[in-house]
Amino acid sequence: METRVSSPTREVFIGDGHPTVLIGERINPAGKKKLAEALKAGNLEVVHREALAQAQAGADILDVSVGTFGVNEVKLLPQAVKTVMDTVDIPLCLDSAVPEALEAALKVYKGKPLINSVTGEERSLARVLPLVKEYGAAVIGLVQDEKGIPKDSERRIAIAHKLVEKATAFGIAQEDIIIDCLAFAVGADPGSGTAVIDTIRKIKAELGVNLTLGASNVSFGLPDRSLLNNAFVVMAVAAGVTCLIVDAAKIRPAVVAADLILGRDKHARRYIDSYRQRQRLQKQEG
Amino acid sequence: METRVSSPTREVFIGDGHPTVLIGERINPAGKKKLAEALKAGNLEVVHREALAQAQAGADILDVSVGTFGVNEVKLLPQAVKTVMDTVDIPLCLDSAVPEALEAALKVYKGKPLINSVTGEERSLARVLPLVKEYGAAVIGLVQDEKGIPKDSERRIAIAHKLVEKATAFGIAQEDIIIDCLAFAVGADPGSGTAVIDTIRKIKAELGVNLTLGASNVSFGLPDRSLLNNAFVVMAVAAGVTCLIVDAAKIRPAVVAADLILGRDKHARRYIDSYRQRQRLQKQEG
Repeated sequence: METRVSSPTREVFIGDGHPTVLIGERINPAGKKKLAEALKAGNLEVVHREALAQAQAGADILDVSVGTFGVNEVKLLPQAVKTVMDTVDIPLCLDSAVPEALEAALKVYKGKPLINSVTGEERSLARVLPLVKEYGAAVIGLVQDEKGIPKDSERRIAIAHKLVEKATAFGIAQEDIIIDCLAFAVGADPGSGTAVIDTIRKIKAELGVNLTLGASNVSFGLPDRSLLNNAFVVMAVAAGVTCLIVDAAKIRPAVVAADLILGRDKHARRYIDSYRQRQRLQKQEG
Repeated sequence: METRVSSPTREVFIGDGHPTVLIGERINPAGKKKLAEALKAGNLEVVHREALAQAQAGADILDVSVGTFGVNEVKLLPQAVKTVMDTVDIPLCLDSAVPEALEAALKVYKGKPLINSVTGEERSLARVLPLVKEYGAAVIGLVQDEKGIPKDSERRIAIAHKLVEKATAFGIAQEDIIIDCLAFAVGADPGSGTAVIDTIRKIKAELGVNLTLGASNVSFGLPDRSLLNNAFVVMAVAAGVTCLIVDAAKIRPAVVAADLILGRDKHARRYIDSYRQRQRLQKQEG
């Protein structure tokens, strides 16, 4: 199954036949005090800089979120989206828990975006799916519902089935739904890593849809977070995840290595290019 | 299934309920000119130093091989094994393609060793299995036979079945057979990574035996070999490999991270210990 998203000048394909797609996570004020302050002041300079840096680090798509206390997302999200579109030419992922903000961003976006996200909650389904359909977007579906995020694999898989059923009943193509299995911090719950990997494998086998993961949570509260995040994305990619919401600068080398091992990088061209690029950067910095 | 190996003072358990066991690969003259020269001259000082370094780097078992052109393994392997036993107190893996050398080493070894290796070839089975049985050892079985190493998963799995059948018919317990699925260089054959991971999963599901892998081959001929080796061992461990033949100093951090994600490291104790140890080493060096 292949998900296509686009900007006015570029298409990105997500699916098993392609290298793992990296969705840059850094335009998001959660846990970033400086960015949150700038957004509250309506200052989009940091957004511009982060967009540029992530595209240079090899992000294929950029997630754009302005959701933080004190920000009017309906007003600011479309402005941030315009700023990013003026900065880079890669497709965007419009990220908000406020459907009105998503709609305002969809109105200004040029191309076929990803929407982040819809959940299994009736209210979310009823409000977000019509937007996905009307604007011809693709959407990330989170495996959570009115009862929160289930710990067990079975209930997560059941929500994934529900998301796909509701969306297709709405006339949305199955390839335009990407399921996010939601990773937890392994430091807090030792069984959560295996549960997520297991959920990924089963959803892949049962539904065949594309899968994504926000992979930085897994290392929360532990030292050497990159080491743990790298190991986790490698496992996730091997289990069937086809796109990742990550810090591309930190995660790309491990993902490129995983793709090479999994036969998604003929003649190791991408692996060697990525290596040479890191060598150049090191020389410039050192 | 649980494989036990031992030295006079230590036991090591290999199996799903345990952290991944690291078998240090560095006492092996293949591709190491200096070590090969020393061994030809009967000088075991390098063997002593490598044993010490690997145990300090966190190897749980040490592989001991002296196989190189110009060396009488029957004479030298038991001497090398004695040297390593005098240096460290962890169990050993006796490594030779010469059955007489294995037997000479078994005669001097104290404890229950691993033997590396038996293959699916009739000649190897007939010569090595009696040694495994007589000395109460555990053995690594390579998925290769008279026709070489099969490329396809099906034939590798068939050889694994044959190895287990022949060994158990000989009165060797199934937990004393560890299958090595034999990793190839992914630079030379883009499909080989997936083939090995697939083989691991299937042998695990069909036979339930412990599995090992010599994981350094995978990166042969490519730059930044550690990056690729790390990604590969993480995938291998997630797929079901329970011990690895590797350079422990380089590979241990990634394996410890993988074990934590897979729920084999309660309270992240091993992960945090490993982190602190690296911090101390960096301070000493820097």
